[in-house]
Amino acid sequence: MNKYMHRALNLASSALFITSPNPRVGCVLVDAQGRVIGEGHTQKAGGPHAEVMALRDAAARGHSTQGATAYVTLEPCSHHGRTGPCCDALVAAGVAKVVAAVADPNPLVAGDGFARLRAAGVAVDVCDAQTGGAASRELNIGFFSRMVRKTPWVRLKAAMSLDGKTALADGSSQWITGEATRADGHYWRARACAILTGIGTVLADDPALNVRYVDTPRQPRLVVLDSQLRTPPAARIFAASREVLIYCAQDDAARRAALEAAGAVVICLPASGADRIDLTALMRDLGQREVNELHVEAGGVLNGALLQEGLVDELVLYQAPMLLGRGQDVFGGMALAHLQDAPRLEVLERTTIGTDQRLIARLPGRYDF
Amino acid sequence: MNKYMHRALNLASSALFITSPNPRVGCVLVDAQGRVIGEGHTQKAGGPHAEVMALRDAAARGHSTQGATAYVTLEPCSHHGRTGPCCDALVAAGVAKVVAAVADPNPLVAGDGFARLRAAGVAVDVCDAQTGGAASRELNIGFFSRMVRKTPWVRLKAAMSLDGKTALADGSSQWITGEATRADGHYWRARACAILTGIGTVLADDPALNVRYVDTPRQPRLVVLDSQLRTPPAARIFAASREVLIYCAQDDAARRAALEAAGAVVICLPASGADRIDLTALMRDLGQREVNELHVEAGGVLNGALLQEGLVDELVLYQAPMLLGRGQDVFGGMALAHLQDAPRLEVLERTTIGTDQRLIARLPGRYDF
Repeated sequence: MNKYMHRALNLASSALFITSPNPRVGCVLVDAQGRVIGEGHTQKAGGPHAEVMALRDAAARGHSTQGATAYVTLEPCSHHGRTGPCCDALVAAGVAKVVAAVADPNPLVAGDGFARLRAAGVAVDVCDAQTGGAASRELNIGFFSRMVRKTPWVRLKAAMSLDGKTALADGSSQWITGEATRADGHYWRARACAILTGIGTVLADDPALNVRYVDTPRQPRLVVLDSQLRTPPAARIFAASREVLIYCAQDDAARRAALEAAGAVVICLPASGADRIDLTALMRDLGQREVNELHVEAGGVLNGALLQEGLVDELVLYQAPMLLGRGQDVFGGMALAHLQDAPRLEVLERTTIGTDQRLIARLPGRYDF
Repeated sequence: MNKYMHRALNLASSALFITSPNPRVGCVLVDAQGRVIGEGHTQKAGGPHAEVMALRDAAARGHSTQGATAYVTLEPCSHHGRTGPCCDALVAAGVAKVVAAVADPNPLVAGDGFARLRAAGVAVDVCDAQTGGAASRELNIGFFSRMVRKTPWVRLKAAMSLDGKTALADGSSQWITGEATRADGHYWRARACAILTGIGTVLADDPALNVRYVDTPRQPRLVVLDSQLRTPPAARIFAASREVLIYCAQDDAARRAALEAAGAVVICLPASGADRIDLTALMRDLGQREVNELHVEAGGVLNGALLQEGLVDELVLYQAPMLLGRGQDVFGGMALAHLQDAPRLEVLERTTIGTDQRLIARLPGRYDF
């Protein structure tokens, strides 16, 4: 991979916790002599994109951008959103060439940025998978998912014993995994647009479900599946400063009012039988609400239901070196009729964290969009 | 470690499937110039020990053993068992010095061999843990366990999904792990003195439970826990040529006769409540029957009971990259009242086998005998 594109991808990565719901994008400006004259990454939503940051950086450093080449990890935008089109800014700055890692994933706008640049006389080069395209897509897998599939990239995190239990039968589950593992879990929370949990977890553990063990300028939204609106308005989930969305299947004016007073946004979705929230409709709704990466941290019932309905894309599983015997199943909500229906995983990575092991895996075919 | 002791340990390892119930021992004879003049390992039970094999090898090669040094991975025996004492053979061959990796683990005879050698004017050197002692003990962990604790080293093997299931709720479990993993499982069977299973597994799967995927000159004995003697006399376990021990808690003359006619040895042990076989008494009985390494391959009920009663020393767990959701728990027979009672494991090794992962772990403190 070209060194400038590599640097641009590093800049994009450094924006991992920041840009939601926008993609993580980096830009490096290089002059005719190959010197880096400016660089930047996308800021928080509503703030400048990577290209504008890099142009400002070049100006601040006193460099002219006339005839420069811009290495950018995503096709520059051509539309007026909360900020002006980056294409126009690059043209106005006299940039002669744009090297982009990958085209905009939105099929309705893909290529518009490139066309606008070419129309203004700017040379455009688009990388293939090896030279930056795959890395940029991977970094923005949630954004790509939302643009193409209209639903988030669903990453399910679970911590369990070696025999697949999250707790004893009575629910006791404190300190199954170690401290380093818990901190690692917060990294995955921090990069998500939203965290999803179920009412069972809220009632059993009263968790805060915010990001604490890593530094982040932004708390992800929290999504609670609570078909009958049983969330206590005094629950700890309301203490953190971030949006809380509560999805129900059965509306109740009094409970809704109490939860709205606690700060929640209450959304009623049609039930999919037995008063259960329609999980496919949920994912569509979360896509419309600009959730790129959805981080699931729930109990075995919801974990299993999501898995069985084919809604999970990726798993982050922590295994502690202990055995719990009979207890709460990590995917207890999944009941298979045939062994061949069992999800087989593509394991991407196994990492030792303290005495625990972290396994990152994907469900087959979920990446092919 | 000394290179001759290293070679002697390799010879001992090559006898892994052979010597049961005797220990795996290797011997290297070295002359005054440091040349290897003879080597050997213990043969099958009743056959010559390592020292005698090495002396015969030297003789066959036409080397004199006068003044030689013998490197041997265990204290030479001083008693008349099925073979004459190795000490006497070494003395008669004119060996001047014996370097032994470790003393005989049997507290009643430990040091007798060394004393007998020294009394005959042979110099004796005993290694410490680093220079061979630990490796020899590890290779013979089952023999050491039987000599010291009077019970076998209990190694439990299980193959499961990532979420700790051995089968779906209806029992279907074919091909959870891959072919390479199944072959690896037979390696562990082959090195054991006996394989232990439960009546549940015999009735549900009708397994052969012999060694097939690795070459072995010896089939381990099979032990079935069958409290009410429900094993069908036509079960596949009787097809393999090896001893089958069936333990019951409730004797029944007719069933016993039918099983004995099928080739089984039937042993009635006092029940430990609810007609269950007393597992502690079972281990003592297996120790008396010269079982060094006991390989457990059973269902979740027996697995869990052994674990909960503190009778498991080591685990060989295979994890297939699939999820089964609700199903049969790998340690379903263990029900803990408190999280702090959960066995925490010392993980020795994680190995990738095909797409599966093998984990070897020990229960804390079980090695301290």
